[in-house]
Amino acid sequence: MKAHTEYLTFHTKKRRELVHLTPTLEAILERSGLSEGFMLVSAMHITAAVFVNDDESGLHADIWEWLERLAPARRDYRHHMTGEDNGDAHLKSMLVHHEVIVPITAGRLDLGPWQRVFYAEFDGQRDKRLIVKAMGE
Amino acid sequence: MKAHTEYLTFHTKKRRELVHLTPTLEAILERSGLSEGFMLVSAMHITAAVFVNDDESGLHADIWEWLERLAPARRDYRHHMTGEDNGDAHLKSMLVHHEVIVPITAGRLDLGPWQRVFYAEFDGQRDKRLIVKAMGE
Amino acid sequence: MKAHTEYLTFHTKKRRELVHLTPTLEAILERSGLSEGFMLVSAMHITAAVFVNDDESGLHADIWEWLERLAPARRDYRHHMTGEDNGDAHLKSMLVHHEVIVPITAGRLDLGPWQRVFYAEFDGQRDKRLIVKAMGE
Repeated sequence: MKAHTEYLTFHTKKRRELVHLTPTLEAILERSGLSEGFMLVSAMHITAAVFVNDDESGLHADIWEWLERLAPARRDYRHHMTGEDNGDAHLKSMLVHHEVIVPITAGRLDLGPWQRVFYAEFDGQRDKRLIVKAMGE
Repeated sequence: MKAHTEYLTFHTKKRRELVHLTPTLEAILERSGLSEGFMLVSAMHITAAVFVNDDESGLHADIWEWLERLAPARRDYRHHMTGEDNGDAHLKSMLVHHEVIVPITAGRLDLGPWQRVFYAEFDGQRDKRLIVKAMGE
Repeated sequence: MKAHTEYLTFHTKKRRELVHLTPTLEAILERSGLSEGFMLVSAMHITAAVFVNDDESGLHADIWEWLERLAPARRDYRHHMTGEDNGDAHLKSMLVHHEVIVPITAGRLDLGPWQRVFYAEFDGQRDKRLIVKAMGE
């Protein structure tokens, strides 16, 4: 059994932004030398998320609109009494989930034809970390 | 450490349908020969999901109604400018999540008394794949 | 490869309650002797969830309000025809997701600075179980 861990840091220009991770994850898998196992891709902050879906800009616009409808930016979150203004980012992170597991088979990320991995930043413009941990053999 | 991988293909009769997976997963576990580990059950398409909940038809009807309320079928998704008409299926997939990990203990799926694993098809009537990857010893 | 499994039982005083799990998980990790791997933290009931977010009471109040808005307690769920009255708890469990994977690195839970693990009870006041399964080396 072997484990391989890398940390990525994102500093997005906009407060809310999607970052396509698949090519970066493929490079990490190559460095890991693993051929069979699981790759955990997990945001280390509680105002970001990781998900698998299509790399299509119209869909991404739909996703942002949908997230805003289900977990809207509002002034009156109780969390804001701490001085924060990112209550919606916490809820969006819970909705999308902060991590995924990607299977590794025969030395490749075993994704379906349209599956791509994205980092979703909900409160950026500052350094945010993500852990990629692959385990297997 | 051992890894065992199988792929399932679904071709549902209806566009939206639930498929109960637990007996199939138990058979896969038996073929794997694993006694301790994790089993990843992950849709390979971005318009389907996998979840764990109760095998009760009333609840399933509630789930469908709830999904339609939170991620409704609509004509005006931007994703539809690509020629697709399944924008809601992408959002439903994000909401439910496309994968689960089932623990394996003493050669059995270590599920609670009411936990059953389901494949949720949101845009079927065509071949859709799912990966089951068990890892452990 | 080594696997270490423990079961926790919760019996919350209130029907809906959050339980902070991180210190308990750290003690389990220590007992496991693992230094690299994954820790699965998974509710064994279908009316509970596990999530990672901030340990801040204002945010927790926001989370409860938000869950009630997206998956409200209602009388008319079809699931209630079975005699149950917890339809909302099933939907809240699906929304939040019933499990997380925590990475283990250098003998520690590899969480970000604000990440804490919570058990979310949606239908308590009775014994409910959770499995913690760590795998690695």
